Amino acid sequence: MWGGRFAEGPSAIMREINASIPFDKALWRQDIAASKAHVAMLGAQGIVSAGDARAISEGLDRVAAEYEADGVPEDWDLEDIHMVTESRLAELIGAAAGRLHTARSRNDQVATDFRLWVRDACHQVDTGLAGLQRAIVTRAGEHADSIMPGFTHLQTAQPVTLGHHLMAYYEMLRRDRSRFADARARLNESPLGSAALAGTGFPIDRDATARALGFDRPTANSLDAVSDRDFALDYLQAAAQCALHLSRLAEELILWASQPFGFVRLPDALSTGSSIMPQKKNPDAAELVRGHAGRIVGCLTALTVTMKGLPLAYSKDMQDDKPPVFEAHGLLALSIAAMTGMIADSTFRTERMRQAAELGYATATDLADWLVREADVPFREAHHITGAAVRLAESRGCALDALSLDDFKQIDSRIDERVFAALSVDASVAARASYGGTAPVRVREQVAAARTALGMEP
Amino acid sequence: MWGGRFAEGPSAIMREINASIPFDKALWRQDIAASKAHVAMLGAQGIVSAGDARAISEGLDRVAAEYEADGVPEDWDLEDIHMVTESRLAELIGAAAGRLHTARSRNDQVATDFRLWVRDACHQVDTGLAGLQRAIVTRAGEHADSIMPGFTHLQTAQPVTLGHHLMAYYEMLRRDRSRFADARARLNESPLGSAALAGTGFPIDRDATARALGFDRPTANSLDAVSDRDFALDYLQAAAQCALHLSRLAEELILWASQPFGFVRLPDALSTGSSIMPQKKNPDAAELVRGHAGRIVGCLTALTVTMKGLPLAYSKDMQDDKPPVFEAHGLLALSIAAMTGMIADSTFRTERMRQAAELGYATATDLADWLVREADVPFREAHHITGAAVRLAESRGCALDALSLDDFKQIDSRIDERVFAALSVDASVAARASYGGTAPVRVREQVAAARTALGMEP
Amino acid sequence: MWGGRFAEGPSAIMREINASIPFDKALWRQDIAASKAHVAMLGAQGIVSAGDARAISEGLDRVAAEYEADGVPEDWDLEDIHMVTESRLAELIGAAAGRLHTARSRNDQVATDFRLWVRDACHQVDTGLAGLQRAIVTRAGEHADSIMPGFTHLQTAQPVTLGHHLMAYYEMLRRDRSRFADARARLNESPLGSAALAGTGFPIDRDATARALGFDRPTANSLDAVSDRDFALDYLQAAAQCALHLSRLAEELILWASQPFGFVRLPDALSTGSSIMPQKKNPDAAELVRGHAGRIVGCLTALTVTMKGLPLAYSKDMQDDKPPVFEAHGLLALSIAAMTGMIADSTFRTERMRQAAELGYATATDLADWLVREADVPFREAHHITGAAVRLAESRGCALDALSLDDFKQIDSRIDERVFAALSVDASVAARASYGGTAPVRVREQVAAARTALGMEP
Amino acid sequence: MWGGRFAEGPSAIMREINASIPFDKALWRQDIAASKAHVAMLGAQGIVSAGDARAISEGLDRVAAEYEADGVPEDWDLEDIHMVTESRLAELIGAAAGRLHTARSRNDQVATDFRLWVRDACHQVDTGLAGLQRAIVTRAGEHADSIMPGFTHLQTAQPVTLGHHLMAYYEMLRRDRSRFADARARLNESPLGSAALAGTGFPIDRDATARALGFDRPTANSLDAVSDRDFALDYLQAAAQCALHLSRLAEELILWASQPFGFVRLPDALSTGSSIMPQKKNPDAAELVRGHAGRIVGCLTALTVTMKGLPLAYSKDMQDDKPPVFEAHGLLALSIAAMTGMIADSTFRTERMRQAAELGYATATDLADWLVREADVPFREAHHITGAAVRLAESRGCALDALSLDDFKQIDSRIDERVFAALSVDASVAARASYGGTAPVRVREQVAAARTALGMEP
Repeated sequence: MWGGRFAEGPSAIMREINASIPFDKALWRQDIAASKAHVAMLGAQGIVSAGDARAISEGLDRVAAEYEADGVPEDWDLEDIHMVTESRLAELIGAAAGRLHTARSRNDQVATDFRLWVRDACHQVDTGLAGLQRAIVTRAGEHADSIMPGFTHLQTAQPVTLGHHLMAYYEMLRRDRSRFADARARLNESPLGSAALAGTGFPIDRDATARALGFDRPTANSLDAVSDRDFALDYLQAAAQCALHLSRLAEELILWASQPFGFVRLPDALSTGSSIMPQKKNPDAAELVRGHAGRIVGCLTALTVTMKGLPLAYSKDMQDDKPPVFEAHGLLALSIAAMTGMIADSTFRTERMRQAAELGYATATDLADWLVREADVPFREAHHITGAAVRLAESRGCALDALSLDDFKQIDSRIDERVFAALSVDASVAARASYGGTAPVRVREQVAAARTALGMEP
Repeated sequence: MWGGRFAEGPSAIMREINASIPFDKALWRQDIAASKAHVAMLGAQGIVSAGDARAISEGLDRVAAEYEADGVPEDWDLEDIHMVTESRLAELIGAAAGRLHTARSRNDQVATDFRLWVRDACHQVDTGLAGLQRAIVTRAGEHADSIMPGFTHLQTAQPVTLGHHLMAYYEMLRRDRSRFADARARLNESPLGSAALAGTGFPIDRDATARALGFDRPTANSLDAVSDRDFALDYLQAAAQCALHLSRLAEELILWASQPFGFVRLPDALSTGSSIMPQKKNPDAAELVRGHAGRIVGCLTALTVTMKGLPLAYSKDMQDDKPPVFEAHGLLALSIAAMTGMIADSTFRTERMRQAAELGYATATDLADWLVREADVPFREAHHITGAAVRLAESRGCALDALSLDDFKQIDSRIDERVFAALSVDASVAARASYGGTAPVRVREQVAAARTALGMEP
Repeated sequence: MWGGRFAEGPSAIMREINASIPFDKALWRQDIAASKAHVAMLGAQGIVSAGDARAISEGLDRVAAEYEADGVPEDWDLEDIHMVTESRLAELIGAAAGRLHTARSRNDQVATDFRLWVRDACHQVDTGLAGLQRAIVTRAGEHADSIMPGFTHLQTAQPVTLGHHLMAYYEMLRRDRSRFADARARLNESPLGSAALAGTGFPIDRDATARALGFDRPTANSLDAVSDRDFALDYLQAAAQCALHLSRLAEELILWASQPFGFVRLPDALSTGSSIMPQKKNPDAAELVRGHAGRIVGCLTALTVTMKGLPLAYSKDMQDDKPPVFEAHGLLALSIAAMTGMIADSTFRTERMRQAAELGYATATDLADWLVREADVPFREAHHITGAAVRLAESRGCALDALSLDDFKQIDSRIDERVFAALSVDASVAARASYGGTAPVRVREQVAAARTALGMEP
Repeated sequence: MWGGRFAEGPSAIMREINASIPFDKALWRQDIAASKAHVAMLGAQGIVSAGDARAISEGLDRVAAEYEADGVPEDWDLEDIHMVTESRLAELIGAAAGRLHTARSRNDQVATDFRLWVRDACHQVDTGLAGLQRAIVTRAGEHADSIMPGFTHLQTAQPVTLGHHLMAYYEMLRRDRSRFADARARLNESPLGSAALAGTGFPIDRDATARALGFDRPTANSLDAVSDRDFALDYLQAAAQCALHLSRLAEELILWASQPFGFVRLPDALSTGSSIMPQKKNPDAAELVRGHAGRIVGCLTALTVTMKGLPLAYSKDMQDDKPPVFEAHGLLALSIAAMTGMIADSTFRTERMRQAAELGYATATDLADWLVREADVPFREAHHITGAAVRLAESRGCALDALSLDDFKQIDSRIDERVFAALSVDASVAARASYGGTAPVRVREQVAAARTALGMEP
């Protein structure tokens, strides 16, 4: 394949370490598409004859049809998807196949193919995330009034609504989608025609191939174009942040499904049992989503480390760009699908949630706020007064609104009977009606806006 | 500070592990600004009296003036910048200070301060990168014709121009700037008014505070707003990619400054000597830039790991968000500055570069291309013929264009004397005039376009 | 400092990027000790005169006394701790100071100092971990009989004892200590005398300096000795694993301190309140320990990335070795201290734990085991029978041992009244008496063995 | 498989996210071995009948024979290697197969299998590293006298011998082997019999199964035993450090093979050509080894992140432990093999190396040392004098020993004609005869000691 240059063939070790066909066969569709765009341009520019161009293009269609039917043959001696395809093309159409590689190199070819693949991956993730957002928005709408304890430091903090809590993940995924959109926009330049590193002397038309492949424009610098894997890192970085968000949601579902919380029944279809403990119903899918976050972060680290300190232009280290991206994408796509199923099909045990919110002095802040608002106490002082009330209730083992008015007055004489209206979880939630707050009226607005953004019925 | 809740004070260990003032004092400007915006809104909404609002605002100005003059006092008992400031405010203006914290919490306060800080950091990096781009473009313009060997696999591949090579980094930094711009756009929502996690019952105006602080809008979900550190991760991810690019440039400068390459003389001001070897002139600044890439990637990993699997809303783990961001920003800003100096003030040894390009059979591809173009040989066959010519030259220890026409004709009879014109490095470089290619004419176009984009004189 | 080599002085950027004195001043004790060992050897070998050697040694003592009293002056122009010390020495004793650097270089000097520092750090961590183990063992001994639910997948699985659960962490820390011991053993070779990279022509005695500094032997290869940072990576890897263990314990304490679990009351001294929610008692110390795990992993990543692909021998990138190690060590030491306080002073709410264990069908496995043991049912079949019993109890909303004998017999006629003895949590725990199992008798054995290993009273 | 617990079967997503058989089939040998040890013990203890035990054991042998012949069937509905094997066993021997799982769980089973696998992996790596060390030692012996430039900061520093340089890698690999040995020693405890998490009530003999499987002892705490993946992290950490060392060696081979260095001709069998540049001979194997370091570090990060903050005992996240370990091991084994070939079969161009050493003022330190030794000049002053000499030679464009005695005397009158003997690279190298130094006599000693340690002929 690389000419008459070597006295010996590559050894067995070399075949194994060098061959990328075991993984880069995943690029076959992109490779065929890019080759067809390239040869059409070569023909249009008169760099190859019209007849050869047509023969090559039709031959590529035949190769594609074979791959579609039978898969890509893994011939390690041919190293990679580019050589496997060109070799098969030569078998099918003869010597004209040798003209396909005019005015390009594997360096720009693989950069083009991989960008196309990552662009498709961004699109797939976006579609998956939109689906998960729809599931979230649907459940959030159902539970705009359902009260649960809001936690900070995993301590009961203030009552919130389940709809509000779910919509926090809508926001995270909205940012994730914008991150994939940014990645997609930044990658959408065509490296094709950069050749090995320096461009080419053939009169190629890079705008034409860029247009044919849906790129916004050709890349401006050929050395950069073959050395650049920013687009793969952009994908991995977006994937890592998305995986972190899913890991947080997974953590919460695992907590909520535990017996002490008991906030949710996960769908049977996404749980498993135990080989030894017959009563178990394990939140495996959530755990795997949380675990996959680790592996996706590992994929990001892998390519980051690989790219560090590489001189220009192409170095073979960069062949290690694809396994992390392929692995991360597979894990992320599966995680999104699993999470969509869990959100859509879980049963939220709203009575348990409400009960938990009513314990734990979740409305203590409401007492402090009441003191500020109704008795004009500076906030810091109100905080102290409320601390004393909580201490008293705790020592009695009772809820805050189970203290008597006398109890309250002994702590601070400015408190009157109106305070009790502020101490219920419903009152607390309804009161927090600032923009972005947890009040049902606000949650419904959030849900409505999200439905519109997602193209769902109002 | 947290009321009458505890029987004991925090222990010495707790003081040390808990206090964030040693690092979050860096947020003081943002903290004062956000507090002023908040109290102005509280006053405008009638939540605090006009008099108190004015007193607080003026008090905050006095605190700021003190910080500016004397620095921020590190009182660990007051834990963080927010409490240090509020405590000093109380000393200066008395009880009214207690009203500042109405309708907010440290959770939304720190989220606001830190976003403002990161927004400033994005701006600083952008300014620095523009400066580095200007240095690159200036040197690239000077060296649009200077010939050097282009490498792939660090093997001499094809001749390129130094200007072209430098402009590859212009492109990388262009993407970096777009990444910081994306990060800045995504972060520019105001968490202020999300309070502890659920919003607030006070009739606040979040649009007003958002506007006052230069945010595009308030965040839509209070739980998300206090739990979210995407903006810090976005910054760190952009920083990591930028650091990778700088590490590649650093690697090249180190290689080029080595005696075997001898392509560059780095500026004395950015080099050091050896304590033991008197002849040494070490590329320390470049090495440190390359080394810093490791630490910046470490900072990204740190926050990524910290955020994994955290349930909503705020957890104290998130206090570990700031040290990695502060460290990464300091290292990146310094790296950009050092690299700007190195690009601006290095002396490129163009005669050594040209000489290196002339060795190493860098124009072998030109021979192959000539065969395709002039003798209509399919590329793959031309590649074989050229391999034979290289082998012959190598066995003689001579350059490719030192072979005789007879030598060439014995290898392939279709070669004629016109071939020699294609084998010089000047001809090779001039020929690669495809868009994005290394031909001086193309490089000048790239440089001109970049100068325009950077607002430099044409 | 680096001779008459340069026309210009280092610029302001260079001073800032180059100076390591802001952090490497932490090495001053090690630097003085290594210099004293070096000069004593130079004197003994006659390389410097006895008088000079004595003057230098006494001068170093004076410098050390100054540092002890007033701290290390941060003179950035002197770059690092080595030059700061030598410069001060020269002021104190004059020209003889210049002889100290004979037959060494900063390259072997810093490698020696840093190894000594890391050796001390290993020792400190070991001491801290032993203290934490003692706290664990003490509490485990108190709670060898206390029953709690054992979880897998965070689902109630089988009853275990709290003592058993705590002793799991004893085991993890035992492995951590062995990891630090391995790191210490591997690093304990002296690089001193490797000079810049190639050794020295002076007739030095490397065994003598190695011995004086407590090293087992001198390093065998001078190029390796100045290029090697394995010892720092070994430390960071051990620290990362230890931090992971602490993060798991922290996660559990946070869960257990939450209202839904309610298994533990954390010590006031290691908790905080909320600036806005007066009822909160937040497990800050545990959260920070968990968060610090992220930063410690980031430190490991940082040095790992920095070292990747560096050619021999010393490169300046390696100056970035110390900040991650110093940071990780500070965070780890603090985490261990905080965790020791939490284990020692927490109140375990054993009645809540027992109650939780009695719910959740934790003894279902005991039913399956009973069927195997007493009714000779193959395990897989017993698992099915038990599944049916759990389903029945769940549909009734009752515990497993609240089913009647008739209920059981309808599910499988081989069940008889003896089964009820197997279904209590006490019976369940007592039965699991295999080596390493949760039975109190086993836990007491574990505790006793651990007390012996730790040198505690039986 | 998990009893009658669920109303619905797992969905398609669940099958895909849950099934580990696509990767854990790699554990089949270990799984069979552990099951045989377990059932032999069950039989010996009378927990299952002798007949059943024999039937199971023979059945397992038949399953193993099938796997050996035809591979492991990937039945996703059976989830993992454990269930695939047990299911096939049931087909072969009927209901008795159900007794195999008595007194164990998948939790301890997979922990046992995976430890056995990692133990084998440590052994394989150790064997591979010993082979690479032998190749290094052989080449180092051949080149104990070959002079090359020693670099610091990639600047020519002092002459060294190639044998000395190669032996630096021998030392790194020695530490790597000790790290894998430490990992192996620490992991060699048997989790088998820990059951799901709490141990078992069956009268098992854990010492017997530990002994049968070559473990040193059973693990002491069942909760720890099923929650622990330290052994996998230990492997990955050792692998990461080893990969870093190989990346450094790879970087050097790539540098040395570049045209400007020209220090080495890599073996054809481990190089490739270019699809477009016929003259290229690319160091692909070295580049891939360097690139693989990134992926191996990524694998370490993956498992580190996955394990962070997991509560006890087993969580499904831990199923993500195996892909990173399997991937890292495959990459590392291949990297070691490729590096062994490169060291064994490369041709070192010693004349080019020597020539490079003679340039670059590599013996400047020898001049300084001569001044200290022969003229009793303090080192710092000698350093200044030498700097002046280098400056003079540099301004003349000549080597240091091309200066005349008059030139030297004008710089410092204490220099006499004996100095020239110190300024040749041979004299320089021979002089650095301190222990661990680069003098050929020292290198030969190092090589001899290493040959003994490796069991090679003297």
